[in-house]
Amino acid sequence: MRICVLGGDGYCGWATALYLSKQGHEVSVVDNFLRRQWDHELGVQTLTPIQPLSDRLRVWQEVTGNVIESFAGDVTDYEFLASVIESFQPEAVVHFAEQRAAPYSMIDRKHAVFTQVNNVVGTLNLLFAIRELKSDCHLVKLGTMGEYGTPNIDIEEGYIKIEHNGRSDVLPFPKQPGSFYHLSKVHDSHNITFACKIWGLRATDLNQGVVYGTVTDETALDEGLINRLDYDEVFGTVLNRFCVEAAAGHPLTVYGRGGQTRGFLDIRDTVRCVEIACLNPAAPGEFRVFNQFTEQFSVLELAQMVKAAAKTLGISANVEHIPGPRVESEQHYYNAKHSKLIDLGLRPHYLSDSLLDSLMNIALRYQDRVDASLFMPQVQWRNPRNARRRDSLAVSAAVSTDGRR
Amino acid sequence: MRICVLGGDGYCGWATALYLSKQGHEVSVVDNFLRRQWDHELGVQTLTPIQPLSDRLRVWQEVTGNVIESFAGDVTDYEFLASVIESFQPEAVVHFAEQRAAPYSMIDRKHAVFTQVNNVVGTLNLLFAIRELKSDCHLVKLGTMGEYGTPNIDIEEGYIKIEHNGRSDVLPFPKQPGSFYHLSKVHDSHNITFACKIWGLRATDLNQGVVYGTVTDETALDEGLINRLDYDEVFGTVLNRFCVEAAAGHPLTVYGRGGQTRGFLDIRDTVRCVEIACLNPAAPGEFRVFNQFTEQFSVLELAQMVKAAAKTLGISANVEHIPGPRVESEQHYYNAKHSKLIDLGLRPHYLSDSLLDSLMNIALRYQDRVDASLFMPQVQWRNPRNARRRDSLAVSAAVSTDGRR
Repeated sequence: MRICVLGGDGYCGWATALYLSKQGHEVSVVDNFLRRQWDHELGVQTLTPIQPLSDRLRVWQEVTGNVIESFAGDVTDYEFLASVIESFQPEAVVHFAEQRAAPYSMIDRKHAVFTQVNNVVGTLNLLFAIRELKSDCHLVKLGTMGEYGTPNIDIEEGYIKIEHNGRSDVLPFPKQPGSFYHLSKVHDSHNITFACKIWGLRATDLNQGVVYGTVTDETALDEGLINRLDYDEVFGTVLNRFCVEAAAGHPLTVYGRGGQTRGFLDIRDTVRCVEIACLNPAAPGEFRVFNQFTEQFSVLELAQMVKAAAKTLGISANVEHIPGPRVESEQHYYNAKHSKLIDLGLRPHYLSDSLLDSLMNIALRYQDRVDASLFMPQVQWRNPRNARRRDSLAVSAAVSTDGRR
Repeated sequence: MRICVLGGDGYCGWATALYLSKQGHEVSVVDNFLRRQWDHELGVQTLTPIQPLSDRLRVWQEVTGNVIESFAGDVTDYEFLASVIESFQPEAVVHFAEQRAAPYSMIDRKHAVFTQVNNVVGTLNLLFAIRELKSDCHLVKLGTMGEYGTPNIDIEEGYIKIEHNGRSDVLPFPKQPGSFYHLSKVHDSHNITFACKIWGLRATDLNQGVVYGTVTDETALDEGLINRLDYDEVFGTVLNRFCVEAAAGHPLTVYGRGGQTRGFLDIRDTVRCVEIACLNPAAPGEFRVFNQFTEQFSVLELAQMVKAAAKTLGISANVEHIPGPRVESEQHYYNAKHSKLIDLGLRPHYLSDSLLDSLMNIALRYQDRVDASLFMPQVQWRNPRNARRRDSLAVSAAVSTDGRR
């Protein structure tokens, strides 16, 4: 089918675009390269040396014979987005084109406002463009498990039946997001629900857990197709960061007690989940929610798994509990349902020693590119203030003094 | 106490500012006069001939001796807003400074995006400004009963205890808003919840019902203090519009069957509710929700009440069922709790014949200013398209042909 991947130059978007192309779909990618710009802003870079999009797409065509069309532009620019929908005529649009890091949204007021305006306006534009130009197109939107927060009841997939004072209704699951970024996804979910209701659009919200891994069958085909691997405190997700920390001989930085439990998935499952959603579209008027993760872990459990895997590679990794920069429970109930994608055919890649080995081997391979000053959290939820580089130098100096590098 | 009223030149804001000033509070108002600009954009005007803010404030000082300070500017401009908070040092900020009309947000994509960005960014700015400059200041935020939609269970005040699979939690009440405007208020509520949690701010969300009436004890003191009365399809709320329709000899325009049931309140209760919230602030870290209305009515019930009241004035008003421009249930369960403000001392002005008489007498007094072409709904939820003036002329012509004017 014809699938347009918004944000196709990013971590999940790139892997997804290649996977969909390999399965024989006609794929186009849209990106404004803001993700690369943020690396410059923050003074960080992906551990893996990724190529410019144009080069990556050329390599993909050389290796597979498949062409992925690309559109350079910003989804908050409606005229641009409309021109993409009109010319490509997608049957599904996969929407990764949002600012996706909680810490980035918490740097200061401007980053909070930017994140919410960028994400909300991009999604509003997309809803209007689909309605106007391709109303049967299926919107596959990346949400996040973080929309739910950590309620003291089981988390359902999008909706919950509530019995109250002798009556009952099935209502949207109450949301308790934990950052201005997570809030932006909650805003999106409400907006999409409404658009499906009033215009009969079809949409699937993929409430994704924390993604780990970097290699997929497709990116492994050529060095030029390598995916990004972020390990810094802003864009690095926890398991990837732990593996790079271990490879760099740095303690594994567990925030607080590490009891924070979340849903996780391998990036090889991300790409498959997206295809499953595309191949099984929501009905017209339906706003469907899938919880997209395969296993639950606490942060401390992950640290211990990484420590054990490191040991088999002869690396001694210490777990270090540092003050958590976020405002979140460090011990809480967590039981989130995630059967809908399984029912549609997902066969998960569960977290294994081999995956951890592979991740650490990548980290070791590129260890010259590791900047250990990027591990420590500098963005503080309780005190948003854009003093990141100054703190970074201070942390870097402190780490050097401690002899950790 | 020192109270800053954002949006103090608008319908609810103006009445509130005067009431608070009359009670002896030190009041300032902030406004960017966008509400007046929208009248020009839409080709409408308030039935009542309101004066410029500077004149209104001068009259207020002449009549009462009280000074209300004013700041002209936009709350989406952080530097401006911060300067207001810093110089006025409010103990409470009452936030009316949002685009508040559902139909306006549904005109087209630009109006939807404008409404959400304007409302969300203004509130984000306010949260950051309070945190940074006056962290004990109590935010009194105007939300809307429309955040809840029309669930098939009782609506609680902000939170609901949910029992699920043998566990329970008190969670935010699920939201099902019915326009991009109502969605913006839901986004605000989530953002404020989070800010209270992470920064210990104190906030009260007043989920207000549909406001009716125009005269308060304060605006009645002088013709120069008169409040606005909107009767057009975009900014006119239903009961006010019915009264003006009756006075103008126009049928009462009931959307669909008229079974849509909502919470309503007299503007004299709006102003008192705001003061009650200010005098009884939320605790640090608390995000408190009050459902601010006094009675429930269906749209058809209101039309019948207006028809009966008109009859006593010798006016024959017909109820006309016209196709509803919105996407909403015309028959549904509705039972919303609203005891918290009563518990704090609110003594409601219930809807009475005398209020309807008074509203219709105002409409009769200014009947030369009525433009009957503004009654009919032109903004269509299912087909947002900015063709309003063209449609307006068509409707106007149709009405003339029918001999209704």
